[in-house]
Amino acid sequence: MIAMEELIHLTKKLIRFKSMHSNPQEITGCADFIEGYLRDCGANYRRLDYHGVPSILVLPQSGFVPILLMAHIDVVDGPDELFDPVEKNGKLYGRGSLDDKYAVALSLVLLKGHLENVRKQNKGQEDLPFGVLITGDEESGGFNGAKRSLQEVKADFCIALDGGGVHKIVVKEKGLLKLKLVSKGKAAHGARPWLGENAIEKLIEDYMKLRTYFEQSTPDHWHRTSNFSVIHAGKSLNQVPDYAEAFFDIRYTENDNMDELIETMQGKIQGDLVVETKEPLFFGGESPYLDLLLDISKNTEVGFEHGASDARFLAEHGIKGIVWGADGDQTQHSQDEHVNIESVYTLYRILDEFMKISGKPGS
Amino acid sequence: MIAMEELIHLTKKLIRFKSMHSNPQEITGCADFIEGYLRDCGANYRRLDYHGVPSILVLPQSGFVPILLMAHIDVVDGPDELFDPVEKNGKLYGRGSLDDKYAVALSLVLLKGHLENVRKQNKGQEDLPFGVLITGDEESGGFNGAKRSLQEVKADFCIALDGGGVHKIVVKEKGLLKLKLVSKGKAAHGARPWLGENAIEKLIEDYMKLRTYFEQSTPDHWHRTSNFSVIHAGKSLNQVPDYAEAFFDIRYTENDNMDELIETMQGKIQGDLVVETKEPLFFGGESPYLDLLLDISKNTEVGFEHGASDARFLAEHGIKGIVWGADGDQTQHSQDEHVNIESVYTLYRILDEFMKISGKPGS
Repeated sequence: MIAMEELIHLTKKLIRFKSMHSNPQEITGCADFIEGYLRDCGANYRRLDYHGVPSILVLPQSGFVPILLMAHIDVVDGPDELFDPVEKNGKLYGRGSLDDKYAVALSLVLLKGHLENVRKQNKGQEDLPFGVLITGDEESGGFNGAKRSLQEVKADFCIALDGGGVHKIVVKEKGLLKLKLVSKGKAAHGARPWLGENAIEKLIEDYMKLRTYFEQSTPDHWHRTSNFSVIHAGKSLNQVPDYAEAFFDIRYTENDNMDELIETMQGKIQGDLVVETKEPLFFGGESPYLDLLLDISKNTEVGFEHGASDARFLAEHGIKGIVWGADGDQTQHSQDEHVNIESVYTLYRILDEFMKISGKPGS
Repeated sequence: MIAMEELIHLTKKLIRFKSMHSNPQEITGCADFIEGYLRDCGANYRRLDYHGVPSILVLPQSGFVPILLMAHIDVVDGPDELFDPVEKNGKLYGRGSLDDKYAVALSLVLLKGHLENVRKQNKGQEDLPFGVLITGDEESGGFNGAKRSLQEVKADFCIALDGGGVHKIVVKEKGLLKLKLVSKGKAAHGARPWLGENAIEKLIEDYMKLRTYFEQSTPDHWHRTSNFSVIHAGKSLNQVPDYAEAFFDIRYTENDNMDELIETMQGKIQGDLVVETKEPLFFGGESPYLDLLLDISKNTEVGFEHGASDARFLAEHGIKGIVWGADGDQTQHSQDEHVNIESVYTLYRILDEFMKISGKPGS
């Protein structure tokens, strides 16, 4: 099949762009390349740039589309050799092969195919049931990509092609809270600790109380968790430290009221809790499109993930959705990142059928 | 009295040298100045230099002297204005006024006076009951000053003029142990902490056990203490840290067997204890010279201090001793460091009498 060949060929071309955030001109270059591809297809699109981060939005003039495919071209850092894609034993290796360039290629090839189809029926891009959003900063938070670009989109359902697996549709992801704990004490000479108040000791005492709020443990771990990520305190060996700070990476679920929890915890401790970042959870919601997908793809089930993705921005724009994708043995961000080629084909076929059914009048 | 005037005059001259360790040429310059003073007195002395740290040793040819006075010319850092001595309300202000330049001046003026006296009796320096050691690195550990120079000295009794007060002779100071605790864990993504082992958590668990060994608290605090000085751990907010290290400033007494304690503690924890520095305590011992001093100075009592000084090196050279000095309202190292001038005079008079009695044949 021509489309399948093009899928892998195009993914390889995309992998060759070293589109890391340490190399922003390569992210821009990759976006330029995609613009060229879209022009060749005769697709209407918009290039958006927020604080230097490029996004590409393929939508009808109205700005409304029933289904939105979302993927990203930026990748995490990697050595040069990872940007030279290698096919081996049915897998395509390379930085971004799985996260998330196969998905960009899949979206583009699917768009091209469906554009050709509607044109054969003397219709146009506005008759497509889907649009595409390709962003450039998922790996650095999505604030100038998905978060901003979704303001330009009206859609019923979004498929974020950036997680899960062919057999697992992700319908929720935990929210993220970065919390700082600050303890203050009183300096004194280290030989006379009783004259001071040790800020590290106070921080540890506080932490002992905080951690009681994160003791739940179930086999699926669908509950809030806290990771004691970073601590820095003390300047000099012979001094009682008068300042200590620690950072916690907290992940929460739809069952948590974090504002309330922070208030409760603050009431129990001596130090100060400071919210550094609070990101919503992704909670996809019920949708007939999800039902349709599960109907087409009999072996696929719904599930959840612990990490966060750009899908967390959907709710604030009133868009329901899922996170879904090809299989790659959980190798994203690793040295041997790869995507299983057959799973890309399978995903393509399912989405192709899904779009065909969704595009039919009265569907 | 001439000697009293010279005492303060000379202390002021010494204060004007910015003899901080950030400014080593001023330490050298101050030592050069003292050499000049000794030459003017016609005293025999040796200039020692270990790793660029100057010490000056005034001893008879034999290398033996009953009593050694010890003081230091180096000072802790301070702004320029602190090196401009100011006399006010009976106090002499300035960096080093109390710690420890009045003591250098006192030792020199006392030496000069006693040299003149013995010469009147047609005797010489070898008939003096005391010598003087002036060092240049007490504030940075004393390793190239007192520790090395004391190898060149045979003495019965040392008066380290660097602590205590006119009414308090220090006969013991705690030992110092710098201990590092290292914890190792297993990295994982911060969203899935259950897949990792948090090195900070492990360190805190260990610390909870370690601190049970430092819970004793008496009014005089003459027991071992531990200060949790420094902790550094964690690189990235979204990662489970796989390494954590902490430093403890431990002070111990003659009642502690630290090697045994470290072994016991190591047996209770998961991490590794590493001894960074271990310094002996100062334990002056019984001496007829101490009895004589207490006899001369009726209002003076013996006591102890929690900090460490160069006096800790005496024991390894078989020298008994005390730490003693003028009063300065505990202002050493502070912005308003000062010495109470009357207390310098009192100390001088006591030491003058002490040396006269000690110098008499058959004393």
